[in-house]
Amino acid sequence: MTGSERTVCFVSDRTGVTAETLGHSLLSLFGGVTFHTVTMPFVLDTVQARGVVARINALGEERGVKPIVFCTVVDQDTRAVIKQARALVIDLLSTLLGQLEAELGKQAEVAGVPAMHGATTDPSYSARIDATNFVLANDDGAGARDYRSANVVLIGVSRTGKTPTSLYLALQYGVFAANYPLADEELEAGRLPRMLLPHREKLYGLILKADRLQQIRSERRPGSRYASPQQVQYELRAAQALFDRFGVPYLDVTECSIEEIASRIMDQMALARHARS
Amino acid sequence: MTGSERTVCFVSDRTGVTAETLGHSLLSLFGGVTFHTVTMPFVLDTVQARGVVARINALGEERGVKPIVFCTVVDQDTRAVIKQARALVIDLLSTLLGQLEAELGKQAEVAGVPAMHGATTDPSYSARIDATNFVLANDDGAGARDYRSANVVLIGVSRTGKTPTSLYLALQYGVFAANYPLADEELEAGRLPRMLLPHREKLYGLILKADRLQQIRSERRPGSRYASPQQVQYELRAAQALFDRFGVPYLDVTECSIEEIASRIMDQMALARHARS
Repeated sequence: MTGSERTVCFVSDRTGVTAETLGHSLLSLFGGVTFHTVTMPFVLDTVQARGVVARINALGEERGVKPIVFCTVVDQDTRAVIKQARALVIDLLSTLLGQLEAELGKQAEVAGVPAMHGATTDPSYSARIDATNFVLANDDGAGARDYRSANVVLIGVSRTGKTPTSLYLALQYGVFAANYPLADEELEAGRLPRMLLPHREKLYGLILKADRLQQIRSERRPGSRYASPQQVQYELRAAQALFDRFGVPYLDVTECSIEEIASRIMDQMALARHARS
Repeated sequence: MTGSERTVCFVSDRTGVTAETLGHSLLSLFGGVTFHTVTMPFVLDTVQARGVVARINALGEERGVKPIVFCTVVDQDTRAVIKQARALVIDLLSTLLGQLEAELGKQAEVAGVPAMHGATTDPSYSARIDATNFVLANDDGAGARDYRSANVVLIGVSRTGKTPTSLYLALQYGVFAANYPLADEELEAGRLPRMLLPHREKLYGLILKADRLQQIRSERRPGSRYASPQQVQYELRAAQALFDRFGVPYLDVTECSIEEIASRIMDQMALARHARS
């Protein structure tokens, strides 16, 4: 392993998602370094922690460079063991918890096993499952067409990312997201689909740059009219004209990740987040 | 707002997901306090930052208690403005970046607008979209049945969370997750479905406690045989016997969040994470 490569370990007493999310944000600011990441979740006691330390030390020796460890373990004894690893151990909790304890005037409840927010105790769990089922039942304008229960209805031409965005909104935020594909007849008529008219305030449009959409469609149906530059440009122009005419907010998602698309929709549509805790 | 309530703001130059994830982890350790959370994403310059500060200050005055702000803004000037808010501003980046800079022997690239990892630049974007499409095509044993391309095949009786878990694995990790529902004929025969036999090493089972599964099914089809205690208990016992007999690893997800289920599967099946950066 050269100096421009590093092993990074995410050590957590739960899923490791928090350590991964913050860790990746930080690491993305260091260009030119290749990071090899390993997630070590569900480290619940000092015995398991000693196993983790052995693994971290072995990775360091094998690769000849000190690993970086992002640690989100709550239990102090377990954390103390992890800090003994021959690595830069970045403790994401202790400093921050101290600040919060001072501000809130109470101690964090860090003794023993971390709280598990599971199917039976977390109110947002069923909200997110219900939202996911809603998306699947209302995907691509098919099936249920239950726009009254929807929090948002994504519209756009084929392959602009409506379905993955809807699913992400459901799984991350518990949002009931329907989606409706704009087909030729609607684009030609220059009108919103009649069944969407009563729900105009819930509509949100997605568009892509023409060359990107053409590329995506070509992978799916090479050489087809559907993937031709003329058809793609026509559809995108007509969709944008429709959005402008009916005042539908929309986003060009060409440069956006799914998280960014979802977050912008949440923000612009002022949707309530059924946050996971 | 009483002393046991607090306004919490997540301020970010991108989606706010990092600040939300870490913030919720920390706040969950303070029982007895109700947190009202607001996410303020895409704060990119000092002008927008001043708007955010005004909003935070207004929330503080309106509710009569100092807000807590989790800030993941990279640009130093923008961050400096946010720190002027009349709030406890927890800067999630600056301390941690300093530690990383010292270890890596280089400066973080924090000047100007943060890096945008969008559809055209982020290799994991298309992996995650492809994985989502794969899940939808291979959901509930229907359609494609493309188990050769699958990284994992979730099996279990109806309503054990196979579909949401598959979608989460796809959207979060870019994993190709198929799922297959165990029906009466397979449970009675005590055999794995024939089409799954060549892919035994990819199988992962989900089960729930009987009373929880009965409750979920009753909400869906009240009073049905499907939701009866006898049927639910029979199916769960038969599924577990099948898993034991064929050495299929499995998880009781009754107490697990979707993140936890997904993370345990990633860990036990040693699946590669197409991490978002």
